Amino acid sequence: MTDYFGEINPPQRLLMGPGPVNAHPRVLRAMSADLLGQFDPEMTAYMNETMALYRQVFRTQNRWTLLIDGTARAAIEAALVSLITPQSKVLIVRFGRFGLLLTEICERLGAAYATVDAPWGEVVPMAAIREEALAYRPDVIACVHGDTSTTMAQPLDGLGELCREIGAFSYVDATATLGGMPIETDGWGVDIVTAGLQKCLGGPSGSAPITISDRAAEFIFSRRHTEKGIRAADAEDGHRPRIGSNYFDLAMIMDYWSEKRLNHHTEATTMLYGARECARVALQEGLEARFDRHTRAGAAMTAGLRAMGLRVYGDDRYRMTNVTGVYIPKGLDGGRVRQRMREDFEIEIGTAFGPLQGQIWRIGAMGYNAMKSKVLTTLAALEACLVAEGVAVNLGAAVPAAREVWG
Amino acid sequence: MTDYFGEINPPQRLLMGPGPVNAHPRVLRAMSADLLGQFDPEMTAYMNETMALYRQVFRTQNRWTLLIDGTARAAIEAALVSLITPQSKVLIVRFGRFGLLLTEICERLGAAYATVDAPWGEVVPMAAIREEALAYRPDVIACVHGDTSTTMAQPLDGLGELCREIGAFSYVDATATLGGMPIETDGWGVDIVTAGLQKCLGGPSGSAPITISDRAAEFIFSRRHTEKGIRAADAEDGHRPRIGSNYFDLAMIMDYWSEKRLNHHTEATTMLYGARECARVALQEGLEARFDRHTRAGAAMTAGLRAMGLRVYGDDRYRMTNVTGVYIPKGLDGGRVRQRMREDFEIEIGTAFGPLQGQIWRIGAMGYNAMKSKVLTTLAALEACLVAEGVAVNLGAAVPAAREVWG
Repeated sequence: MTDYFGEINPPQRLLMGPGPVNAHPRVLRAMSADLLGQFDPEMTAYMNETMALYRQVFRTQNRWTLLIDGTARAAIEAALVSLITPQSKVLIVRFGRFGLLLTEICERLGAAYATVDAPWGEVVPMAAIREEALAYRPDVIACVHGDTSTTMAQPLDGLGELCREIGAFSYVDATATLGGMPIETDGWGVDIVTAGLQKCLGGPSGSAPITISDRAAEFIFSRRHTEKGIRAADAEDGHRPRIGSNYFDLAMIMDYWSEKRLNHHTEATTMLYGARECARVALQEGLEARFDRHTRAGAAMTAGLRAMGLRVYGDDRYRMTNVTGVYIPKGLDGGRVRQRMREDFEIEIGTAFGPLQGQIWRIGAMGYNAMKSKVLTTLAALEACLVAEGVAVNLGAAVPAAREVWG
Repeated sequence: MTDYFGEINPPQRLLMGPGPVNAHPRVLRAMSADLLGQFDPEMTAYMNETMALYRQVFRTQNRWTLLIDGTARAAIEAALVSLITPQSKVLIVRFGRFGLLLTEICERLGAAYATVDAPWGEVVPMAAIREEALAYRPDVIACVHGDTSTTMAQPLDGLGELCREIGAFSYVDATATLGGMPIETDGWGVDIVTAGLQKCLGGPSGSAPITISDRAAEFIFSRRHTEKGIRAADAEDGHRPRIGSNYFDLAMIMDYWSEKRLNHHTEATTMLYGARECARVALQEGLEARFDRHTRAGAAMTAGLRAMGLRVYGDDRYRMTNVTGVYIPKGLDGGRVRQRMREDFEIEIGTAFGPLQGQIWRIGAMGYNAMKSKVLTTLAALEACLVAEGVAVNLGAAVPAAREVWG
């Protein structure tokens, strides 16, 4: 062990699961640039540019559009711990595992909550959210946009309007869809939206874009209690309860990203380089073109799987474009097929959580991997692996069906 | 703006502040490798290797030695939120800004605490810690090792023994020293030690190594409440209060890094590649050789500054080897000198916080930058910048003095 395990040298694997996916090569190249001091003018310029780029990606005018240093769920927790006080009532829209996550974060924050649920594989009608909201009168409504555990995308038109009507803030977890499906932060009128890089944005996990409306920021600043050791002698604390986390205190994080540059953490420079490049790649392609590419990839994958004779999971109307659930044929060991895919073809497809574990595979095509060649390759390989396991499939049907849909 | 701000293209700047510093080129190269699925066998092998490497870096046998996905203070908060319940009493050893940070995290967690303080520029005698501990009977003693705000390193011999004597857990923040000064996790007998990559480990900020003793892990697992959506039907919750954060729940993070591979976050693959390479570089050099290199760099920097006629800050006996505080000559605008250093020489030196703001510069030489050429270059450049600002320095004295000390 004198070389301490040797260099990083991963296989060239095609990641067609629900994420993480392969990063765009440009993103990895951007991340190899050398570091800067955190207050160097070039660094703060990159921070400001990153804010401007993500405003476009989130389709918002929100000044407070920045990065949380951590994985996607770091931004989820930052949003909730900053918006929710122990006195808050929260309404959580749940239709999969990541809705459960919102519930459990609320429990840990000691906040009261109610839920409005849909069975896995469906979404929650806005009328049901409205009915529950009018009855429960929450301070915050929290919702996942695309829940990869069920492959469903929740329609969110009207959520912002509802929230303003009842005086609530709205939070949307767009981890799995930002950069792949339309996220209309200002169009939906929602207050905080968070994401990650490792799905449709085609980057590595570890940096989490977030956008915060002015009214949410105003509320969060009313909870500002600047850290000892950096606070000015005449600093005034906000009048609302201090945020329960230092690391996820959005008031201090906004101060750090503001012209005040009040030191909080040391920005993860390499991840910022990556996040910035993810946004540049997405905006240079054009968001509409990108959404269209993801739509075609999902439709082609679905058509191919069906042509093969497999049954696709969940409600067609609300399926995410970037990840498709497909039932594992009865009696087949799904893990063996995943292993064959990996060992024979260097392709990864996803397993599932909770009630769907062992029931479905989840096959993604997102970010850099929402590409015709990768969809067709995955379908061809899956067909071969199913044949090897003795499954009766419609031989040779998947690839032509997918190619035709791709157009 | 059709190119959306252009490629990442930072200047080739020498970062001689208190961190972040320039990453070792091998670390950045390792980070350009393509991604893996989070449960792919190659990925979990890299995770296990990273654990084994950091056991050596932390000088511990602790099974639970892993990474927190976030900057250094993410690991600080993970340690404290997992160790401290709202019923806990915490004793905090403070001698700088990062001791204040420990206090404020305790306040946010709603824990009672006492402090034992030293003036900035000094450290706290172990006898004083002992006296306060015996009087206060804390459940946790928390301490920073090297506090870059004051450039002092707290001696920690005897801390573990004291804690076991009074039945307390011990926590040490070694962000600024791991990989540069001896961290004797098992030798000191401390329970949790955390760090970051962007100081002596010579990597980018964004991943935070942590090591957890078996007895601390046992306590933390007694607070385990596995997240809904991934918990087994027969899962039993721990009998102690649930940890107040999902993202920083070390029980779930340990389960994710264990053979259970229970999904929590999506590991930040690129940062893990970087963290792993930081450890490989450090271990291949040899920890003792590395400590010696940092000692020589610090001694050479100090000798050079003194030879120039400047006054070095703080108690000589307890100075960190990797960062040196030096008084800004009376009447001089420290910011102008820092700007000249950057604009004329592409060298960054650090400013200071709180009571030391405007009083001292902080000059680092750590990780890849604890190198003779970089120390000498910094001294020569600083001399030129002081001359340009009209400061009377001993011309030509700094470099020979530093060279002689380097040996």
